[in-house]
Amino acid sequence: MNKIAAEAELLAIEQIKQLKARYFRCMDAKDWSGFLAVFTPDATIDSSEAYTPTDLNGNPVPVDGMPSPPPNPAWRSSDIAEFVADLANTLTGVVTVHHGHMPEIALTSAATASGIWSMEDMLRWPIGSPIREMHGYGHYRETYERLADGWRIKSLKLTRLRVDTTP
Amino acid sequence: MNKIAAEAELLAIEQIKQLKARYFRCMDAKDWSGFLAVFTPDATIDSSEAYTPTDLNGNPVPVDGMPSPPPNPAWRSSDIAEFVADLANTLTGVVTVHHGHMPEIALTSAATASGIWSMEDMLRWPIGSPIREMHGYGHYRETYERLADGWRIKSLKLTRLRVDTTP
Amino acid sequence: MNKIAAEAELLAIEQIKQLKARYFRCMDAKDWSGFLAVFTPDATIDSSEAYTPTDLNGNPVPVDGMPSPPPNPAWRSSDIAEFVADLANTLTGVVTVHHGHMPEIALTSAATASGIWSMEDMLRWPIGSPIREMHGYGHYRETYERLADGWRIKSLKLTRLRVDTTP
Repeated sequence: MNKIAAEAELLAIEQIKQLKARYFRCMDAKDWSGFLAVFTPDATIDSSEAYTPTDLNGNPVPVDGMPSPPPNPAWRSSDIAEFVADLANTLTGVVTVHHGHMPEIALTSAATASGIWSMEDMLRWPIGSPIREMHGYGHYRETYERLADGWRIKSLKLTRLRVDTTP
Repeated sequence: MNKIAAEAELLAIEQIKQLKARYFRCMDAKDWSGFLAVFTPDATIDSSEAYTPTDLNGNPVPVDGMPSPPPNPAWRSSDIAEFVADLANTLTGVVTVHHGHMPEIALTSAATASGIWSMEDMLRWPIGSPIREMHGYGHYRETYERLADGWRIKSLKLTRLRVDTTP
Repeated sequence: MNKIAAEAELLAIEQIKQLKARYFRCMDAKDWSGFLAVFTPDATIDSSEAYTPTDLNGNPVPVDGMPSPPPNPAWRSSDIAEFVADLANTLTGVVTVHHGHMPEIALTSAATASGIWSMEDMLRWPIGSPIREMHGYGHYRETYERLADGWRIKSLKLTRLRVDTTP
């Protein structure tokens, strides 16, 4: 990498880290217009990978009254505005905490990039809900595109290492 | 951002990330002189925002024998040396783990900057204490100032997404 | 730090962050050849520091059937290939989640660096194992060396703030 390319890549990487920081902060603050603004208009979301939520004894957990767990083709979207509206509806009354860790971001051209993030999410539903707590761990695999006003997330795919639920 | 400004900003951002890393590491190691040294002499702290610690069933938790929870104007300080001395006293015998995530740091001038951090803290009091465990999540909103010997935290405001306690 | 040195250091720091990201990702994915490739051929590992795993009441936990906890000189290795083979064996059937936070990385020469990372690890053994869950927190202190094909971890020393286990 030559000197000028290195600086441009470092700057893009920092900007993409801050983009993803807004993704997490806006989601947990339920700032849905801010959240939508981290995506390209044609962004795609894929959270459909198979995993089985378990209780703390490792037993599979039924999810009556909850969105069906993956594998679920419905957890794919190529309509980002609809996806964010659905998410806002799903998370009404739910306290969420999302963290990202250990990014591996690389430019794939002057205006495109790819990244992997380790993630952790904690959801707490209101008392009386079928599931009170979900605590999950996994990775995001993403692509990014630089639009006129800055970097955006163009695609996001979530895979899971572990998902715990508490009734 | 032009090329030279970009490099200066990237360097400042990395230095501020390492400053905040010392904040967390010195606190958890109870290195109170190292902790005090991450702040400007006139630094202000504000942890007074309202939140209600709850148990894992979502019920509010009384905190007899504990520092009163916010909203509490006493959890504001403009005397950083006194604040750190009080913190050192409060945390004697308490095992603490503090993590920061997903910084959004921006230069506001050549020698000043602002930042937002996601945070998580875990406190474990000795057996027999009124509360055994506190596990919290939230955000720091901070400003920074570059002194002759490097960046320092000039102001820190903590807000909470969720605070769990265990008797 | 002059301008060119700053850019070289920033680039090295980012590359070392991504190196450590591969360390975590390959471990949790059980990609043992990818994991081995983050180390220099002469890398040394030291996880021998004394700590006492406790249950959630703070009582020390016996570890019958588990690797003995530190202090244990056997948790030092100067044979990285053997260490990784042993780790792969130990973690067969164990779901692991490892996160790193708040790096403090500095160049010590053009081709060497040092770093401190805050860490958290969660291990879940299969049902019927003597211990079901381990959840730990601590710090890595590491050195790095730049080989012909990029940065590698040359030494790693782990210390602990807290280790919780659940039967």
